[in-house]
Amino acid sequence: MIWDHDDDKPREECGVFGVFGHPEACLLTALGLHALQHRGQEACGIATWDGKLFHNERHLGLVGENFGGVDMLHRLPGHLAIGHNRYSTSGATVLRNIQPIFADLATGGFAVAHNGNFTNARALRQELVEDGRIFQSTMDTEVMLQLVARSTKGTLIDRVVDAMRRIEGGYAVVGLTENMLIGARDPVGLRPLVLGKLGDAYILASETCALDIIGAELVREIENGEVVVITEEGVHSIRPFPARPPQPCVFEFVYFARPDSIVGGRSVYEVRRRMGQQLARETPADVDVIVPVPDSGVPAAIGFSEQAGIPFQLGIIRNHYIGRTFIEPTQIERELSVSKKHSPNRAVLEGKRVLLVDDSIVRGSTSRKIVEMVREAGAREIHFRSASPPIQHPDFYGIDMAGRDELLAANHTLEEMRKELGVTSLGFLSVPGLYKAIGNMERRETYPQFADHCFTGDYPTRLLDHDRKQGSKHFQLSLLDEPPLS
Amino acid sequence: MIWDHDDDKPREECGVFGVFGHPEACLLTALGLHALQHRGQEACGIATWDGKLFHNERHLGLVGENFGGVDMLHRLPGHLAIGHNRYSTSGATVLRNIQPIFADLATGGFAVAHNGNFTNARALRQELVEDGRIFQSTMDTEVMLQLVARSTKGTLIDRVVDAMRRIEGGYAVVGLTENMLIGARDPVGLRPLVLGKLGDAYILASETCALDIIGAELVREIENGEVVVITEEGVHSIRPFPARPPQPCVFEFVYFARPDSIVGGRSVYEVRRRMGQQLARETPADVDVIVPVPDSGVPAAIGFSEQAGIPFQLGIIRNHYIGRTFIEPTQIERELSVSKKHSPNRAVLEGKRVLLVDDSIVRGSTSRKIVEMVREAGAREIHFRSASPPIQHPDFYGIDMAGRDELLAANHTLEEMRKELGVTSLGFLSVPGLYKAIGNMERRETYPQFADHCFTGDYPTRLLDHDRKQGSKHFQLSLLDEPPLS
Amino acid sequence: MIWDHDDDKPREECGVFGVFGHPEACLLTALGLHALQHRGQEACGIATWDGKLFHNERHLGLVGENFGGVDMLHRLPGHLAIGHNRYSTSGATVLRNIQPIFADLATGGFAVAHNGNFTNARALRQELVEDGRIFQSTMDTEVMLQLVARSTKGTLIDRVVDAMRRIEGGYAVVGLTENMLIGARDPVGLRPLVLGKLGDAYILASETCALDIIGAELVREIENGEVVVITEEGVHSIRPFPARPPQPCVFEFVYFARPDSIVGGRSVYEVRRRMGQQLARETPADVDVIVPVPDSGVPAAIGFSEQAGIPFQLGIIRNHYIGRTFIEPTQIERELSVSKKHSPNRAVLEGKRVLLVDDSIVRGSTSRKIVEMVREAGAREIHFRSASPPIQHPDFYGIDMAGRDELLAANHTLEEMRKELGVTSLGFLSVPGLYKAIGNMERRETYPQFADHCFTGDYPTRLLDHDRKQGSKHFQLSLLDEPPLS
Amino acid sequence: MIWDHDDDKPREECGVFGVFGHPEACLLTALGLHALQHRGQEACGIATWDGKLFHNERHLGLVGENFGGVDMLHRLPGHLAIGHNRYSTSGATVLRNIQPIFADLATGGFAVAHNGNFTNARALRQELVEDGRIFQSTMDTEVMLQLVARSTKGTLIDRVVDAMRRIEGGYAVVGLTENMLIGARDPVGLRPLVLGKLGDAYILASETCALDIIGAELVREIENGEVVVITEEGVHSIRPFPARPPQPCVFEFVYFARPDSIVGGRSVYEVRRRMGQQLARETPADVDVIVPVPDSGVPAAIGFSEQAGIPFQLGIIRNHYIGRTFIEPTQIERELSVSKKHSPNRAVLEGKRVLLVDDSIVRGSTSRKIVEMVREAGAREIHFRSASPPIQHPDFYGIDMAGRDELLAANHTLEEMRKELGVTSLGFLSVPGLYKAIGNMERRETYPQFADHCFTGDYPTRLLDHDRKQGSKHFQLSLLDEPPLS
Repeated sequence: MIWDHDDDKPREECGVFGVFGHPEACLLTALGLHALQHRGQEACGIATWDGKLFHNERHLGLVGENFGGVDMLHRLPGHLAIGHNRYSTSGATVLRNIQPIFADLATGGFAVAHNGNFTNARALRQELVEDGRIFQSTMDTEVMLQLVARSTKGTLIDRVVDAMRRIEGGYAVVGLTENMLIGARDPVGLRPLVLGKLGDAYILASETCALDIIGAELVREIENGEVVVITEEGVHSIRPFPARPPQPCVFEFVYFARPDSIVGGRSVYEVRRRMGQQLARETPADVDVIVPVPDSGVPAAIGFSEQAGIPFQLGIIRNHYIGRTFIEPTQIERELSVSKKHSPNRAVLEGKRVLLVDDSIVRGSTSRKIVEMVREAGAREIHFRSASPPIQHPDFYGIDMAGRDELLAANHTLEEMRKELGVTSLGFLSVPGLYKAIGNMERRETYPQFADHCFTGDYPTRLLDHDRKQGSKHFQLSLLDEPPLS
Repeated sequence: MIWDHDDDKPREECGVFGVFGHPEACLLTALGLHALQHRGQEACGIATWDGKLFHNERHLGLVGENFGGVDMLHRLPGHLAIGHNRYSTSGATVLRNIQPIFADLATGGFAVAHNGNFTNARALRQELVEDGRIFQSTMDTEVMLQLVARSTKGTLIDRVVDAMRRIEGGYAVVGLTENMLIGARDPVGLRPLVLGKLGDAYILASETCALDIIGAELVREIENGEVVVITEEGVHSIRPFPARPPQPCVFEFVYFARPDSIVGGRSVYEVRRRMGQQLARETPADVDVIVPVPDSGVPAAIGFSEQAGIPFQLGIIRNHYIGRTFIEPTQIERELSVSKKHSPNRAVLEGKRVLLVDDSIVRGSTSRKIVEMVREAGAREIHFRSASPPIQHPDFYGIDMAGRDELLAANHTLEEMRKELGVTSLGFLSVPGLYKAIGNMERRETYPQFADHCFTGDYPTRLLDHDRKQGSKHFQLSLLDEPPLS
Repeated sequence: MIWDHDDDKPREECGVFGVFGHPEACLLTALGLHALQHRGQEACGIATWDGKLFHNERHLGLVGENFGGVDMLHRLPGHLAIGHNRYSTSGATVLRNIQPIFADLATGGFAVAHNGNFTNARALRQELVEDGRIFQSTMDTEVMLQLVARSTKGTLIDRVVDAMRRIEGGYAVVGLTENMLIGARDPVGLRPLVLGKLGDAYILASETCALDIIGAELVREIENGEVVVITEEGVHSIRPFPARPPQPCVFEFVYFARPDSIVGGRSVYEVRRRMGQQLARETPADVDVIVPVPDSGVPAAIGFSEQAGIPFQLGIIRNHYIGRTFIEPTQIERELSVSKKHSPNRAVLEGKRVLLVDDSIVRGSTSRKIVEMVREAGAREIHFRSASPPIQHPDFYGIDMAGRDELLAANHTLEEMRKELGVTSLGFLSVPGLYKAIGNMERRETYPQFADHCFTGDYPTRLLDHDRKQGSKHFQLSLLDEPPLS
Repeated sequence: MIWDHDDDKPREECGVFGVFGHPEACLLTALGLHALQHRGQEACGIATWDGKLFHNERHLGLVGENFGGVDMLHRLPGHLAIGHNRYSTSGATVLRNIQPIFADLATGGFAVAHNGNFTNARALRQELVEDGRIFQSTMDTEVMLQLVARSTKGTLIDRVVDAMRRIEGGYAVVGLTENMLIGARDPVGLRPLVLGKLGDAYILASETCALDIIGAELVREIENGEVVVITEEGVHSIRPFPARPPQPCVFEFVYFARPDSIVGGRSVYEVRRRMGQQLARETPADVDVIVPVPDSGVPAAIGFSEQAGIPFQLGIIRNHYIGRTFIEPTQIERELSVSKKHSPNRAVLEGKRVLLVDDSIVRGSTSRKIVEMVREAGAREIHFRSASPPIQHPDFYGIDMAGRDELLAANHTLEEMRKELGVTSLGFLSVPGLYKAIGNMERRETYPQFADHCFTGDYPTRLLDHDRKQGSKHFQLSLLDEPPLS
């Protein structure tokens, strides 16, 4: 089952969730994963420890489809649980690539799930295979698990830290043993992870919206490079890396996080609305109506409308009943330029000067189709605005956008892009405007406050194997070693 | 597979679609049904005629899940096609209750699908069984098919008319033979049906948004009591009933139709926006922010905001990743008052005087939960507005809302309802306001311009067996005669 | 799912079973159908009446796959039950063609299943369609059900008799109402049906082996043209047709019935063994070893070996693990003349003069392959014997063998067949030998003791539409009106 | 899907097959596995190498259900292939426990499958986990794969030999790399493996019947302790262990191998027939009829009949249409002593003195039921004969029979067993008689010609962890780490 992506949107690999100390840990985890469903819709899994046994279930499809009934309490009993949503970056969403993954280690059972990408995964994998290690998946998570298993340190936590020292990249990890819930963020703090509390139970989650759905309160964000160990004794924190300023990924504000989440103390909705306001200041236009590209462009469009004093209207209707995608567009669909996700609301558009607001432009393919659709609906003028700066550089920390070659802004001037999209005017939020909208701040030259490399090329870590996708002959093979999921 | 309903919203049984004269008729039908998916998500079916054979496929689930690939052209070839989306009103969504249904009649093969409800179906069914007829489903559609089969008139069209004379209620029918596409609306014109054209091909559809997705142009609406027969010779119209003013169901404007559809020459989006504006005039409030109950309350909330000059903000976020529902709410979910569909956007609500706008209030159960959720998110005051009048009477023409006992407005004064919802103020659009918003008109006393019985109790037809749900012992049985859909 | 047939064997449509008066009627029915599985492996169904409701389940696949657990008691409760195994004669094993079928009639609910074929089904169907009746399947059973429904007689039994008067052909029917179990055989008695008793409960079954599995005792066979009505008052018998000698189908002895069944008071195993003995007398051969074509040739081969005093050995091993068939033979399989069902036992065959015994020869295609396989295994001489006479005429009463054109013996002399099979000698049991083996009797010229038309061309009824397979354009259509299964 | 076992029969884990150098290697493998289906019906898998990529498919169910179409050539292309049938010994037939398994090793890709059991698997597994190795299954095969991966030898073959030096027990292994097909038997030669040739292609298979189905000729058996490496250069043989006489498992003759297979140069059918003849000499009886317990007792019963001069008849009919089993026997089935697999043929048994012949008696539970069934069918006297000696000791090399406590002959005298089964006389083949029947030989005291420990307690290897089933807490866990195979 393949769910419909916003094909021209950045994709993040995954949401994570963990519970320590609640008798219905799996139910909380299912609810938390449901609230994090926007971070990954291809597959989901939950692992629990019930005091005697580990339990692990992994499925293709949505959380609500797989973890929706009370029978879950019988299948996945226990006071400790971790869970995971997956957004695969390739066709290889096969059962063995679904998280959490589990292994019996010399130190006991260990389940682990993560969000993000290791930039030296390929080198580590090669090293581990040379050392006679057998991989059963193509996930970075298994690289970490193998490093933990191979470590000769005395305790599991020391082994996890040992493994983290070898890993480069961006990640947020949740782990589970017989008596611990573990959370960790990479030294840069690229991928998000928050700590919450529900009664006596502790919660870990990618976003605060997953705390809200279960009524848990936010304690704090896990810090960059921090390892949190939650046991009966409470929360213990380890900081194995030299201190450095955090640089969380700015794309959580731009696109990933749910608007009702709080990231770094800031409402994502308000940040996006301010982006729209700032955008209106930076790139005003004389138009009749502000129309969002739904759903991600709505908050910025509201902000733009407020700032510009021009009416906000739903000029594009989104069809949410996609389900499994229409597998291949047929000839007739191409001829008819059919869009199954967006349809124009002619009453709003016809004869009007329309300004479209989207959160970002990646390859531009969807933007182009939407512009065409709006034009055919009779708009007199079409202006396009991106509520974030031009994306000119790819990400290697867990965001799957497109190769550099495909990024519209990496290869075109503003005027070229305007012509490409076929609009009267095109505008992007500036990088300084982005920082202003987020927190009324100025961007630091060294260690900028956010990882904004997609806009600036300023990567927060070295990039060892960012060309790993080409892979070697060997390491591609195991993708094929999978029975069909009949 | 049960898809998530807006539990407290009216439900309509079905969308229909038909094509005459296009080589890829099934693809057009699949696209049209996809655009009509909001009218029914439980099941879908397509029947075609390829010049030699009829083909018929019926499935549980969404259109995109079942009719999504080009292989469809091999499975459902032909120039003629009809299709159907089903929104079941009971648990009986079994294969044999999915439309279109097909039969070999003495006059040749005939496939038929319909949207609506016969108010004398129970009596007709009893009569047909007494006459030795064998029913294979519990659908009204089969009652019509049996009447057509039993008719002794000479031609199929005459038999269809013969059947229509026996039927009371609200319906829009599409039918298919070896050389005809047939469309028909009930004498009152309760359920919608439009005629479109794509090149030389003719299209029938429940709404114009299904014409838009394939690029077809709207020719006109089928009239009340009209039977349209489309053949190689073109469109032929029959009017077997005495002329009377049409009374289309007003709920198409209130809730059913997609905002980008044109109903009775009017943009549904604009009508809803004007309802919001009128609502602001009739029931103003001194608040900080206008918040829609997503998604159906958005256009009216925009209108309210425009009229009142108060900001429109997304104070409630809707989670669209429901998929199959979480089957049973668990104890913990009830304790936590978890909502899996709506979450509050605290940044918009906290400390604010909030006015919530929804399209209508049926039983009030969802409204109550949303109010509670908004309150817990810190709203200082909560005001609630319904963009339609109080619903005080049930429908019997294909809308499944609730019994009279369950309708909040049928059993409570405005003040009682305000207390029940726990809000500072509560307001409904007036019936005159509704007519004004739709078309700046005054409601006619006799033959009002719309079927508005849910608000007024003024039913456009007699109601023979509206208690049919109790049924007799016999006629309930066939529900059970169905193999599980393993 | 297509189960493997003995492709070159006659196929019978179906086994039937019924229970009156046992608290676990569905379990007895499942066991009975399991014992009758050799009569049909494509689909199976059970209908019950629990005093308040009818229940009906129909599935593709084996009985043990579908009706194997105690949960059945919850799904199919009741003291009355009927069941059916289906062996389809065409590709149309779709859900709607699985029996029993059920309908609400004016006289109450009625479920029915049958084994056999109506020779005037096509004409009846045409007549019913002209009369405005809607067919939902392509089964003869539905023709009967429609006739019962249409009858204007006062009671259900009178309507059933009314229907039987219209029907020609061979059939054994079981029917179920709220207070009756009904069994009926055609006037000739072509298809078998026996009455049994288990404690106070009455049982109907196609063969005695289905009584044995539940420990029921045989009461008697239902007579030709008899209708048995079992109620609380006991067994009541109706004989609506003029008396005539019975002519049960001789193929029950030759191939269909299980060897442990008793047909017409005779052990099927012993009859087959005597056929082998008689065959040895009629067509002796100087060979080293008698080898059966497994499994159907075994009893006759044992008899041949006994009579001839030549060792019986398993020279051909049958692989029973076929499950769903290998769908299409591949090129390499054809090149290698692979048989997935039979393999030669070289130790028995090599260098030997081998006599192969099979129950019958239909088209000869399998026989030819087996001979070739035995030759390649090193047999010095191969002799072939059929334990029944040459099949020269097709059947129209429910046996699906092949058209006349395909019957080997219909188109070839004995010597031509010998050459065609490539054997040293070929022999068939004679018709007089067949009667002698069955019961030491001589064949009557008029009203012979058995329906032996396949060997003699002497059909026991007129044949109204035995060319019905060509069908009319209309009546083929409904085959297509079926959603794919899953 | 659980297929029906002969519950009271020994079970062997698996059949293996391999092809080197045929363009349709996967088709040959599917056919070979089909011929070996009697060695394992729970699951099956095929791995291929196409010159560029490895392909691997593993499924629950029969070969014909999963590898039955020509589309296989697209899914599993290549000139090299190995395959496997699985007969699980516990409930853990989950996807990850299906073979072949594949890994990217430092030396390249490697797929492996095996038949048998390691008697020190538990100790090896513990050692590997201590060393930081991660197991993904509970199969012995993965222990071997991990040992190969961990080996520091230079070439894959050296690593395989290195692994074999660590392993104790009985096994036959097939392995696949980019340019090699590997076959190996344990030093004792317990589990079977033969080498065949089809044109230029080489074949490995558990039994010769798998060569026969594809028309390959037998080259020779792989010797005990031999590793065969098949490359473009031909067959190369390695013998890494000190020479010792082979001791193949005698149960291949008694029960496992198909009757048409040649084991150790001897026809299995002829050996079984001679066992029956020898049994008749050792334990004669004055009876009327010799009746086999089908299907495994047939050859010995034929032999017994020949020697004793008493007629062989099918007194018990076997129902092969089991499919998925009836999951739980219901109360009524227990009351009725229903057998769904065997039914008595009363015509053969009634009033007769019957001698039943089976291949062996394990727990005696099925034998008891069959005796009871035969008695109820009216047999006057019942005599029981086992064509193999009493089974008094469990196996630890891959045969799953029962614990010592459950073995009937381990805990009872002959007279006790006779009473337990309720028969007039009971007889077993003697151990000397077994050797005589196999090859007219006398059993050697040291290094007997066959591994006959089940009869004699004389185990051919030491038994390190034959109590491994108790396991440690840790190592049981991974069984649970498996998503349901919905």
